[in-house]
Amino acid sequence: MNKNRETGAVLDPKYDASGLITAVATDAVTGEVLMVAHMDAEALERTRETGEAHFYSRSRARLWKKGESSGNVLRVVEARIDCDQDSVWLRVEPAGPTCHTGARSCFYRQIQPDGLHRVD
Amino acid sequence: MNKNRETGAVLDPKYDASGLITAVATDAVTGEVLMVAHMDAEALERTRETGEAHFYSRSRARLWKKGESSGNVLRVVEARIDCDQDSVWLRVEPAGPTCHTGARSCFYRQIQPDGLHRVD
Repeated sequence: MNKNRETGAVLDPKYDASGLITAVATDAVTGEVLMVAHMDAEALERTRETGEAHFYSRSRARLWKKGESSGNVLRVVEARIDCDQDSVWLRVEPAGPTCHTGARSCFYRQIQPDGLHRVD
Repeated sequence: MNKNRETGAVLDPKYDASGLITAVATDAVTGEVLMVAHMDAEALERTRETGEAHFYSRSRARLWKKGESSGNVLRVVEARIDCDQDSVWLRVEPAGPTCHTGARSCFYRQIQPDGLHRVD
């Protein structure tokens, strides 16, 4: 592993073959994981510039500001990057439900021995 | 999107072209994101069977029980899956530092306007 990337103070994301890193958004108050998505360099830059979470939509193959149509933006309170700089953690204040299904979080089902149980 | 996958009670992970889904582990007590990794079907199955987090190591191309060498296993308190079933959220009790660097979490650096700031 690149030691500068791991211990240094320089933001140097390790993009994958598709030019993406993983992004996890958690509720800054409750700690709940709200969603997992991907960012390319532009999405990361826009997020840093605006303080609102931007991602790269793989299905639509374009930059995607979370909440651009729903209004349910994610205001970034804190952003962190992991040891090998291929994942970003955003602590956010959500303006509304994060999931397109209307749920507060995309993780609304527990995995149980007999299947999935809705918890939210 | 597959509606059964989104609303149903059947675990039906949407593995990517490499046979992987994303896994996020958070501390069950503090809510802190500890690490982000990947799981193949076997890693998910082992995690469910044993109650300890297993992942798929892309660099080593094999199943990887977190803590297999360090002893710093992650005991799973709760597992959830997201709307499109391509990401898993594990709420865990860590037996020790999660990061191979010795940090409690892999996310030990904030992204600030002037670069990365160590916070842990």
